[in-house]
Amino acid sequence: MIKAGIIGATGYAGAELVRILTQHKEVEIKWYGSRSYIDKKYASVYGNMFEIVEDTCLDDNMEELAKQVDVIFTATPQGFCASVMNDEILSQTKIVDLSADYRIKDVAVYEKWYGIEHKSPQYIEEAVYGLCEINREDVKKARLIANPGCYTTCSILTAYPLVKEGLIDTATLIVDAKSGTSGAGRGAKLPNLYCEVNENIKAYGVASHRHTPEIEEQLGYAAGKEIMINFTPHLVPMNRGILVTEYATLVKKPDGSLPTYEEIKAVYDKYYKDEKFVRVLEKDVLPETKWVEGSNYVDVNFKIDERTGRIIMMGALDNVVKGAAGQAVQNMNLMFGLKESEGLELVPMFP
Amino acid sequence: MIKAGIIGATGYAGAELVRILTQHKEVEIKWYGSRSYIDKKYASVYGNMFEIVEDTCLDDNMEELAKQVDVIFTATPQGFCASVMNDEILSQTKIVDLSADYRIKDVAVYEKWYGIEHKSPQYIEEAVYGLCEINREDVKKARLIANPGCYTTCSILTAYPLVKEGLIDTATLIVDAKSGTSGAGRGAKLPNLYCEVNENIKAYGVASHRHTPEIEEQLGYAAGKEIMINFTPHLVPMNRGILVTEYATLVKKPDGSLPTYEEIKAVYDKYYKDEKFVRVLEKDVLPETKWVEGSNYVDVNFKIDERTGRIIMMGALDNVVKGAAGQAVQNMNLMFGLKESEGLELVPMFP
Amino acid sequence: MIKAGIIGATGYAGAELVRILTQHKEVEIKWYGSRSYIDKKYASVYGNMFEIVEDTCLDDNMEELAKQVDVIFTATPQGFCASVMNDEILSQTKIVDLSADYRIKDVAVYEKWYGIEHKSPQYIEEAVYGLCEINREDVKKARLIANPGCYTTCSILTAYPLVKEGLIDTATLIVDAKSGTSGAGRGAKLPNLYCEVNENIKAYGVASHRHTPEIEEQLGYAAGKEIMINFTPHLVPMNRGILVTEYATLVKKPDGSLPTYEEIKAVYDKYYKDEKFVRVLEKDVLPETKWVEGSNYVDVNFKIDERTGRIIMMGALDNVVKGAAGQAVQNMNLMFGLKESEGLELVPMFP
Amino acid sequence: MIKAGIIGATGYAGAELVRILTQHKEVEIKWYGSRSYIDKKYASVYGNMFEIVEDTCLDDNMEELAKQVDVIFTATPQGFCASVMNDEILSQTKIVDLSADYRIKDVAVYEKWYGIEHKSPQYIEEAVYGLCEINREDVKKARLIANPGCYTTCSILTAYPLVKEGLIDTATLIVDAKSGTSGAGRGAKLPNLYCEVNENIKAYGVASHRHTPEIEEQLGYAAGKEIMINFTPHLVPMNRGILVTEYATLVKKPDGSLPTYEEIKAVYDKYYKDEKFVRVLEKDVLPETKWVEGSNYVDVNFKIDERTGRIIMMGALDNVVKGAAGQAVQNMNLMFGLKESEGLELVPMFP
Repeated sequence: MIKAGIIGATGYAGAELVRILTQHKEVEIKWYGSRSYIDKKYASVYGNMFEIVEDTCLDDNMEELAKQVDVIFTATPQGFCASVMNDEILSQTKIVDLSADYRIKDVAVYEKWYGIEHKSPQYIEEAVYGLCEINREDVKKARLIANPGCYTTCSILTAYPLVKEGLIDTATLIVDAKSGTSGAGRGAKLPNLYCEVNENIKAYGVASHRHTPEIEEQLGYAAGKEIMINFTPHLVPMNRGILVTEYATLVKKPDGSLPTYEEIKAVYDKYYKDEKFVRVLEKDVLPETKWVEGSNYVDVNFKIDERTGRIIMMGALDNVVKGAAGQAVQNMNLMFGLKESEGLELVPMFP
Repeated sequence: MIKAGIIGATGYAGAELVRILTQHKEVEIKWYGSRSYIDKKYASVYGNMFEIVEDTCLDDNMEELAKQVDVIFTATPQGFCASVMNDEILSQTKIVDLSADYRIKDVAVYEKWYGIEHKSPQYIEEAVYGLCEINREDVKKARLIANPGCYTTCSILTAYPLVKEGLIDTATLIVDAKSGTSGAGRGAKLPNLYCEVNENIKAYGVASHRHTPEIEEQLGYAAGKEIMINFTPHLVPMNRGILVTEYATLVKKPDGSLPTYEEIKAVYDKYYKDEKFVRVLEKDVLPETKWVEGSNYVDVNFKIDERTGRIIMMGALDNVVKGAAGQAVQNMNLMFGLKESEGLELVPMFP
Repeated sequence: MIKAGIIGATGYAGAELVRILTQHKEVEIKWYGSRSYIDKKYASVYGNMFEIVEDTCLDDNMEELAKQVDVIFTATPQGFCASVMNDEILSQTKIVDLSADYRIKDVAVYEKWYGIEHKSPQYIEEAVYGLCEINREDVKKARLIANPGCYTTCSILTAYPLVKEGLIDTATLIVDAKSGTSGAGRGAKLPNLYCEVNENIKAYGVASHRHTPEIEEQLGYAAGKEIMINFTPHLVPMNRGILVTEYATLVKKPDGSLPTYEEIKAVYDKYYKDEKFVRVLEKDVLPETKWVEGSNYVDVNFKIDERTGRIIMMGALDNVVKGAAGQAVQNMNLMFGLKESEGLELVPMFP
Repeated sequence: MIKAGIIGATGYAGAELVRILTQHKEVEIKWYGSRSYIDKKYASVYGNMFEIVEDTCLDDNMEELAKQVDVIFTATPQGFCASVMNDEILSQTKIVDLSADYRIKDVAVYEKWYGIEHKSPQYIEEAVYGLCEINREDVKKARLIANPGCYTTCSILTAYPLVKEGLIDTATLIVDAKSGTSGAGRGAKLPNLYCEVNENIKAYGVASHRHTPEIEEQLGYAAGKEIMINFTPHLVPMNRGILVTEYATLVKKPDGSLPTYEEIKAVYDKYYKDEKFVRVLEKDVLPETKWVEGSNYVDVNFKIDERTGRIIMMGALDNVVKGAAGQAVQNMNLMFGLKESEGLELVPMFP
C-alpha cells in the first residue's frame, strides 16, 4: 500500500482527494493535514465521511510527514509548498503540488501574476507539469509534480491537438471559461455566499486571471512559439464543473479552403483516441459539465463556422476531479507505476 | 458474472442502476430496455455514459429477457410489472421491481391509492418487501422483490427502532418530507421545468400521496398494529436527496419521565450499529442530504423536545440510490449471495 | 415627504427596505446606516442601486439620526436597538425595529432564548407587535414597533383564524418551516457558502429556534391561553421565500364529526377576506414561495385529512418582504396615516 | 387609459408583460390571449396573479382584438404574427411583435435562419426595429414594432458605441453569451427540466443561432458596412438574466497606440450618459445579471487588454424585461407619447 499524506485536506480539492483515495485500492491516507481543524475529527468537518474516515486532522508539518509517507499532496494556497520545500523532503517522498508554485517555468512570470516571491525557485526546473495526456513519460520519472490548474487543464486539452498541428492561428485564440463555485474554495467570503452566487452570472479577473500565463506557456510549447491569449473566467451558479468555449481562426489549406470537419476530427482522434480520460464527442454533440460530474473525464468537441472561418472548440470537466484531485491521483498512479486509471474509473453522476 | 436486464433504463432510477451496475464487478448489463428510445444508443440518451456503455436500447419484452438474464430490474411506471408478470418469467429469472406493484399486501389498498387495477395479485403474497435492513433473511430467499419507494425507505428507517420498541405513540406520528426533483422522473411536464422548480418550494399530494399506505403498512408491522400517519411531501429545488422530519409524542416511562437521549440513542444503535448503510449521527449533528449524495447511506438522528414531550426524528438519503437503484442492487446482492455492499461502497460526493 | 433613516442598510433586510422605499412615493431615505461600509457609496455595496441611490453609508448614530428623520428602521442584530433606545430618541422619531428586541413581552423569556441581557426592558410594554393584520389599530398609534420575524409572520398568519376560533387543538400544533438562504443574512459564514447550501436541505435549530417563543406568545393571545408548539426550521437552496406546513388536530363538532372544508374556509375568509396582503387560495391550490416572490403577500391554504382528523395548514411569503422590510413599511404606512399598501403594491415576479 | 391586448399571455414573456402592465398606470389589459388556456382563469395559470388579475384567457383572434384595443403585443412563436397581419389590423391598432417576424429586413435571410416562409413580407419595410436607445425617433412614429430579441438587445447595446465610432475591428467581433433558462420558454421539453439544467452549463446553437443575423444587421447599420460575427449562446442554471462577453481587436490610434480607458469610456458616455436604462458601470465594476434582475436596465462595461490589443466588452440584462416585455413596454410608451420609463422604474431585486 502506498502511504499518502494530504496537506490542505479540508479544502474542496483536499476533500476530493480524500473521496478518491478512500476508494483507491492501492493507497491509504496516513495524514489529514488541516491547519484550521487540528485535532478535530475529519468526519466532523466533512459529514459525508462519517463512519468512512475515523482520523483526526493534523497540522502541516511537511518534514515530519515526509518521513512517514510515500507521497504528499499539497492542496494549499499559493506560496505554501514553495516555502517549505527542501532537499530532504524531496529525497524522502514524492510530491504532487496542487497549487501553482511549480507550474510556471519563468519565476519572474510567476511572481508578476501571483504577486508573491517564490521561495524555492531552484526546484522549478525539476518539477514536471502534470498534465498526463501530454507529459506522461516525464510524470512517470518525476518526484515533484506541478498539478495543473482547473481552468488550465480544460483550456489546454480542448485546444492542444489543433495548436500542436498548427491548424489554428494562435494569435486569435480566445478562451471564454465558465466555472462552478467550488473553484473559489471553501473560504468564508461574501462573494461566495449562496445568495450572491445563486441566480447570477458574472465575469471576473478579466485580462488578469492567473491561469492565463499557465495556459500560454503550455500551449506555447505545443505551438513551438510564444503565444498570447485572452482568457476570461466566469462564475456560474453550480457547485462543480468547468466549460470552456474557445475561438480561433482556422489556418486555411494551401488551396485556400478551410479544413473539413473530418480533417479536424482526425487530428483530435490522433491525440485522444487512446486517452481514457479525454472523450472526443460525436459530431454535433456539445460538451456539458453535467455529463462529466464526479468523474475524471474531459469531454471535448468543436464546430467549424464556415462563415467566419473560425473554429469554436469546447471542453468540459469537473474542476475538483480532472481539474484538481483526480488529475493529482492520475499523476500519482503514473509516478508509482500503477495503472493510470486506478481509483479513477468513476462513472459520471447524472442527474 | 450475473447477467442483468433493466426495463426502464432511461428513467432517472434506471440510469442510476446503469451507473451502479457498471461499477459492480459481479454484474454485466445485457439489456437496456427503454420503450422510448428503442434502437438508439444508450450513451446518446445519457451523455455521461459515452465510451462507457456501447449498447443500444431495446424494447421491454420481459418474456424474451427472462430467458437471457439472471435478474431483471423493472424501473417502470406503476402497473407495468404487474401486467406482464407470469409463472414462466418467475421460474426463469429473479425480479427486482422498483415500482409499487408488489409493495402493498392488501390489493384493495393498492387499487384505491393508485387508482388502477392490479393485474397479477396472485404474486403479491410471495413478493418480499425489499427493505434489507428489516427483511434481510426473506430477501435472500426471494425471487420477486418489491423495492421500496424513496420517501418510504427514508420515512420508515428513520422511525423504525422507536416504533418497534414502542417508544413513541404511533397515533401522533407525522412525517414531513422534502425531496429533490429527480423523484418526479424524467417526463417532460410543465411543473418539472427548471423555471418552475428553481427558487420555489411547495407541498404536494397533501393527505393523499401514494407512499402513505406503504409507510403505514411497514411501520404497522413493526408496531404490531395498524397505524395511520400524516405524510406530506414537498418539492425542493435540488436534483437529488430526500430529508424527512418526523414528529411523534414519546411514550413516558413508568415514573412519568421522558426517555433520555442516551436511552433513545441506545435503541437506534441496537438496530443500526451493524448496518453499514444506516448511519446514526453523533449527538446534535443533523442529517443533510448533501452528506449522502451519490451514496447508499441513510443518515438518521433525533432530538428530544423536553418542553412538548415530542421527539423529532430526521433522516436523509439519496432518492435515486438508497431510495431506488442502490437499494435494488443491495437486494440483488442478497438474493445472489454476494457481499451486501458489493458495488455500493460509493463515497458521498461533496460539494 | 416622510424622512426615513435605516440602521443596518447593507444587510439583506436593510437592502430590501431601500428597494421598497425607493419606489415609495411618500418617503425619502435620508440616512443609510452601515457600520461596515461607512463612507462607501451605497451603490458600491449593492450594485443594483447604481444610478438609483447616490448616497454614501453613514454610521449608526441613533441620537443624531433621531433629530433628522421621522422614522428609523433598525435592521440590526439582536440587542442593538435595545442598547441604544432612550426617551429622547422616542420623543423625536418613530421606530420600526426589525430585530427581536421588543417582540417578546416577558423579558425573562427573551433573555433565555436569545442568551443576552435586555438593555431597555422599560420600553417592551409600550412596543407594539407589528403584525398589521392582527394589531392594526395599535400600530396606528405606536411610536415603537417590534416588527415580527419572518418565520413568525408566516407561522402565525397561517394558523391564526383557526386558533382564534378554537377550531384546532393547540396542544397538537406543529410547525415545519422551510426558508430560503437570505434569512441567514449577509454575514460571510461557511454554512452559507454557495457550495454548502446548494443541492442540500437540512433542519437546524431543532427544538431551540428563537422564533418559537414569539410564535407561542402571539398564538397564545389568539387562543386566550398559553400554548407550546414544535417549530422546526429548514434551510432550502433558494434565495427568498418561506413555506410553513403546520399540523394540528381539528376540534370535533358536538356531533363528533370534523368541520368541513367549507366551514374552515369560512373562518379563514372571516379574518382575511378584506386583507389585501393575505391571500386565501382556492380549494386544492397549495401555496408556493415562487408565487409571492418580491411581493408583500402571504398565501395560505389548508387541507383536511379525514383519516387522521388533522388539518394541514400551509403558508408562503417572501421572507425579506412580508417577513421583514415589506411588513416594516406596512407598519410605517399605518403609523403615518398613509394608505396601508402604499409602496407595497409589488406584483410577485415569476419566474 | 390605453387598452392593451396580449397574444401569448401565458408564455414567460407574456406573463412578464402582464406583471409590468398591471403596474403601469396608463394601461389596462383587455385581452389575455392564450391558445392553450382558453376559458381558464389567468390566475390559475400564473398563481402570482391571484387576486390581481381576475380575467380569463381568450383565444388569439387578432382581427377581433384589433377592434377592441389600442395596442397588441404578440408574444408568440415565430411565424404567427406574420401569418395574421393585414392592413385592416394595422389601420386599427398598434402592434408590438415580440417574435422575430419583422426584425430582419432581408426576407431571404429570415427564411434561411428560421426555416419558415414569411407570410407577410410586405410589412417588413415599415416595421421599426424597436431598440429604443438607437431608433427612438422612428419608434415614436411606428405602428408596427419588431421588438428585439433578448440576446440581441444585450449584444448590440454592449458593443454599439464602439462599432458606431469605428473603434473596434468588426471582423474580429466575437459574442459569447450566457442566458438563464426562462429564455427557453415555458414549453414542456426534456432539455428544460430542472434536473437537466441544474448543475449544468452547455453551449448550444453554436455557429447557427437565429439571433446571429439580427445582431449582424443592426451592428452593420452602426458600422456602415456588412459585418459577420461569431455568436455562441450558453444555457446557465438560473431563471433570468443574460450576460454577454464580447471580444474585439481595438483599432489603434494613428500613433500606433491603443485607445485609453478614458477614451473608450468617453465614447460609451457619449451614447449612454442620458439613457436611463443603460448603465455604464464604474471602472473595474463588471456587470452581473443579479444586479439587473427584474428591471429594465442593461449594465455595460469593458476592459482593455494591453497585452493582446483586444477589448473585452460585457453587458447584462434581464432577458424577460429589457430582453422582452420591458422593452416592449418602452416601445409602447414611445409610440403613445408617454414618458419613456413609465411603468418601467422597476428597482432590481437582490438577492
